[in-house]
Amino acid sequence: MDALKIKEAIQYRKLIDVLLNPNLYADIVLRGGYFINVVTREIYEADVAIKGQYILMVGDAKDLIGPKTIIEEVRGKFICPGFIDSHMHFESAMLTCTEFSKLSIPTGTTTLIGDPHEIGNVLGVQGMKAMIEEAKTLPNRILFTVPCAVPDAPGLETSGYDVSAKDMKDLLNDPYVQGIGEIQSISNIQPVYQHAPEVIDDLVAAVSYANSIGKTVEGNAPGLFGKELAAHIISGGTHVSCHETTTKEETVEKLRYGVSVFMREGSSQRNMAECIRAITEDGLDSRRAILVSDDMVPADLLKFGHMNDIVRRTILEGIDPVEAIQMATINPATHFGFKDVGVIAPGKRADVVVISDLMNMTIDQVYLGGKKAAEKGELTIEISSYIYPDTVKKSIKRKAVNKEEIVIKANGTKARVRAIEAIPFQNLTGGSEYTLNVKDGIIQPCLQQDVLPLLVVERHGRTGKIGKTFLHGFDLKYGAIAESVAHDTHNIIATGTNYEDIVTAINRVIAMGGGIAMIKDSKVVGDLSLRIGGLMTDELSGKELSEKVEELSRLAKNELGCGIEVPFMHLSFWSLVTSPKWKITDMGLIDVDKFEIIPTIV
Amino acid sequence: MDALKIKEAIQYRKLIDVLLNPNLYADIVLRGGYFINVVTREIYEADVAIKGQYILMVGDAKDLIGPKTIIEEVRGKFICPGFIDSHMHFESAMLTCTEFSKLSIPTGTTTLIGDPHEIGNVLGVQGMKAMIEEAKTLPNRILFTVPCAVPDAPGLETSGYDVSAKDMKDLLNDPYVQGIGEIQSISNIQPVYQHAPEVIDDLVAAVSYANSIGKTVEGNAPGLFGKELAAHIISGGTHVSCHETTTKEETVEKLRYGVSVFMREGSSQRNMAECIRAITEDGLDSRRAILVSDDMVPADLLKFGHMNDIVRRTILEGIDPVEAIQMATINPATHFGFKDVGVIAPGKRADVVVISDLMNMTIDQVYLGGKKAAEKGELTIEISSYIYPDTVKKSIKRKAVNKEEIVIKANGTKARVRAIEAIPFQNLTGGSEYTLNVKDGIIQPCLQQDVLPLLVVERHGRTGKIGKTFLHGFDLKYGAIAESVAHDTHNIIATGTNYEDIVTAINRVIAMGGGIAMIKDSKVVGDLSLRIGGLMTDELSGKELSEKVEELSRLAKNELGCGIEVPFMHLSFWSLVTSPKWKITDMGLIDVDKFEIIPTIV
Repeated sequence: MDALKIKEAIQYRKLIDVLLNPNLYADIVLRGGYFINVVTREIYEADVAIKGQYILMVGDAKDLIGPKTIIEEVRGKFICPGFIDSHMHFESAMLTCTEFSKLSIPTGTTTLIGDPHEIGNVLGVQGMKAMIEEAKTLPNRILFTVPCAVPDAPGLETSGYDVSAKDMKDLLNDPYVQGIGEIQSISNIQPVYQHAPEVIDDLVAAVSYANSIGKTVEGNAPGLFGKELAAHIISGGTHVSCHETTTKEETVEKLRYGVSVFMREGSSQRNMAECIRAITEDGLDSRRAILVSDDMVPADLLKFGHMNDIVRRTILEGIDPVEAIQMATINPATHFGFKDVGVIAPGKRADVVVISDLMNMTIDQVYLGGKKAAEKGELTIEISSYIYPDTVKKSIKRKAVNKEEIVIKANGTKARVRAIEAIPFQNLTGGSEYTLNVKDGIIQPCLQQDVLPLLVVERHGRTGKIGKTFLHGFDLKYGAIAESVAHDTHNIIATGTNYEDIVTAINRVIAMGGGIAMIKDSKVVGDLSLRIGGLMTDELSGKELSEKVEELSRLAKNELGCGIEVPFMHLSFWSLVTSPKWKITDMGLIDVDKFEIIPTIV
Repeated sequence: MDALKIKEAIQYRKLIDVLLNPNLYADIVLRGGYFINVVTREIYEADVAIKGQYILMVGDAKDLIGPKTIIEEVRGKFICPGFIDSHMHFESAMLTCTEFSKLSIPTGTTTLIGDPHEIGNVLGVQGMKAMIEEAKTLPNRILFTVPCAVPDAPGLETSGYDVSAKDMKDLLNDPYVQGIGEIQSISNIQPVYQHAPEVIDDLVAAVSYANSIGKTVEGNAPGLFGKELAAHIISGGTHVSCHETTTKEETVEKLRYGVSVFMREGSSQRNMAECIRAITEDGLDSRRAILVSDDMVPADLLKFGHMNDIVRRTILEGIDPVEAIQMATINPATHFGFKDVGVIAPGKRADVVVISDLMNMTIDQVYLGGKKAAEKGELTIEISSYIYPDTVKKSIKRKAVNKEEIVIKANGTKARVRAIEAIPFQNLTGGSEYTLNVKDGIIQPCLQQDVLPLLVVERHGRTGKIGKTFLHGFDLKYGAIAESVAHDTHNIIATGTNYEDIVTAINRVIAMGGGIAMIKDSKVVGDLSLRIGGLMTDELSGKELSEKVEELSRLAKNELGCGIEVPFMHLSFWSLVTSPKWKITDMGLIDVDKFEIIPTIV
């Protein structure tokens, strides 16, 4: 029993007084709007009465209007519960919780389930706790689902800290921790079972502990069906989600297996339109269909919105607006077991959204715990900047590199090499072989074939190793790019048309204490400092960051001649060893399905 | 963390082995049936593979069939999750948990949420714990929702023990206690607020504590709308049910307010057909529509079934069979937060029902935790009788009564009296006035007007008081009936055509240590011993009890000329002070809406 629960009881007792004593009144009444009921899937005219942080009642509220009651006339507008983003990474936006919230609150998102596994890979429990502390200062509700296994692939990559079952007690007992996040260490369960079954033992232990204290566990099972999917679900304690479902067939299979399908519709990965066909075409019950963003960049938040835009796009796919809103309100609340949000009903937290245009999901007003927090796209409350402790700003723990360390060597004049095949807008990659020239014992990049060196430099002060391979399909013409954002262990990943610029780019990232650097002819063309874990900025607002990212994208195109949009975002995923086929880590080139390191030189 | 949770983790780890190691197999495969998927609301052909207590997978299970796998061919039959009865009273069946389960398991009910508030009124925490101990010995899942306020109406009735917030820690921390049961002390919330607001304080405290340790709370809000309904919901912590909803209009209001509507369809109270119109006529989302029995007599269990029969009747009202089954499986599981039952999916408890005729809900086989427990209506497992401790068998704590104590006195030759108006098959009553003859200072029963004395005799050894009034509409011609089943405090209630037989009937109940007695001309016409709290038999099986009840009903009709079917069941509800209009307790005639004792003599 904590003090907040006791306070809630006292406040509930007061709400009962207001409802039953004819001389007491609501604080606010939203009068005459169209109420979107996400329990019954209806729209009807009703007032919404608010007292303190809570919904008092919905219906005819005229008896609850007293001399001091604030009346908001919302006739012709729609009222629904605040949106829940059930799976998102602040790190993907490169923003702190504070700056992300400043962008997402005006769009109607009132609850965020953040997954801090990026900072967890870099700074472990300490890094995640720093983010949790930040979230506690904010007016929107932010809860975290924390990783139980870092790194994803032990023995194949090096993280800054190894999270395992041993850390669960410390992490999960924080009331701001909702549970365990995406259990992606077993996304590819059969290879893990064959090669590292101890990973499963540790995970089942962590999951069981989480469930025993009432915490939830999220799955992550791209492409799994039948027995493998069943094994993944059981590893996660049976009540799991999947936000990496990309086909209708997978959606049907997972919903049938009881999985909550988190239909992802973020900045880079857009799976909702395909997944939703399980509902629109096959008519499946949508109670376990849930909309999530996963990864959102600030530019999209600013331009299109957040969950409101995902709901809008879901409506365009043929889902009834109320059903689409259910997927961002009651469905996730039910999945997580939230009793106080996701529904507007007596005693619930007054997280309320007023919508002026339902089909366009134009957000007119947003209430957070009974307080108007935004109107017509602008915050109406003050949210102070958050000062992170220095500990999380010093996450690059290695000295500068030199050319000798990073070149890829071979004998003779030609070398047959393996290269990761870039697939734009996908975490997945392919793999091919190419023949490259060797000069002075060093394999040369080849612009004609579009095959460039691809490196991952360990930066957590643990091994100092440098993994090396090649990359095909990046379409870079000049210079180099390096960054400390490199999923999921976030070592420094770099590629370039020549080794000199690659060295300079890596060293610029190290010098900044993390970030992105683009180099041409040994000069900095553009860079972005990301001091928080080498992942997020604490210096720029969402708007400034958005402009900076746009500038870097433009420079990448104009100065480096890169044919891929937002190349540094793509680059960051080619070290993610939880999705096929070939990836690069500080340990070298990884064959994900075989769960092993393979040589770059054939 | 308890040992059972650790054991589950070990067993989950083994299931993963079976799924991923091609040399391991399922224990049982139900092959080729039509699988009723309550998550997606579909029916399709699929095998169900079981290992130990758990579902291994659903789909094509041929790879999981090994040399020792038992194959049950179920082609042409339907497979669905075991049914959940979300609100029921064992006491209403007058059976122990054991004997009730013997009747309900073969009908497909695998989870029972028992509400022991009857025995709680008689024997308090000790009585409820005795029942919980019994439930722990049984193979089906039985959880309890315990009262947090006994008696329902303090100051207006006397229970054997007063349950309040003080008892919650002791009761709710038992893992077999799901939460707080029907909060009927505030069913009629406005009168309670006016007259006994301290009841609300105590209740909110109990509810808050329950929620703080992850336990649920059930509501009970007959006839409430708008502000009063909102106040009731908030008193219950906002996530509540109501099983006393009797009209479509109420159903719509409660579903809109987020209440789980427990559509009752028991032996005496049948509300489903009316409530379900909210779904069939208005098309409301049915995710919070849940089927419950509340009160079932063994004869109905034997003749018609249990939840399977309620599902069957729901289908007849126009609900799709899969949707109706959702209302007895996934919907209640979601309401209570059960993660392991209500759905058939990997890792869930293998509580499985095989149905041979879907429209008639004919149950072919029942599995409890992976073990076949019933086939073709017969148990296939041994369930031993349960021996209750003597403490719960000695619940009648008063000496015999004499005529002088029970007669209703008045001066003169005529008296104007109030009488409770019986409304058959309803907890509700009316109230009217009659003029009766007075002889020797005693008001005489009047068969012509059908107005008889109605008494409640305190039997818990606390006050010894006798409440007295009159009853109209019972249609009794001879003799008297008394019983120790008298909702909710279960004092002895009695009525009759003459005071002498009433005295004999009451004293017979006292002599038996609880039960029902029917007397004519001072002789016992029929009786039934109910030793467990004066509410349940531990001497008869369900079938024997059913025959006995039938015999008593026949005797009531033939020997006492009673025009009401099963009169002792009706009699038992006329002391229930949580539903309007007038009721009788050991304190006297109660005006429920005014929350006060009113004189019988005008």
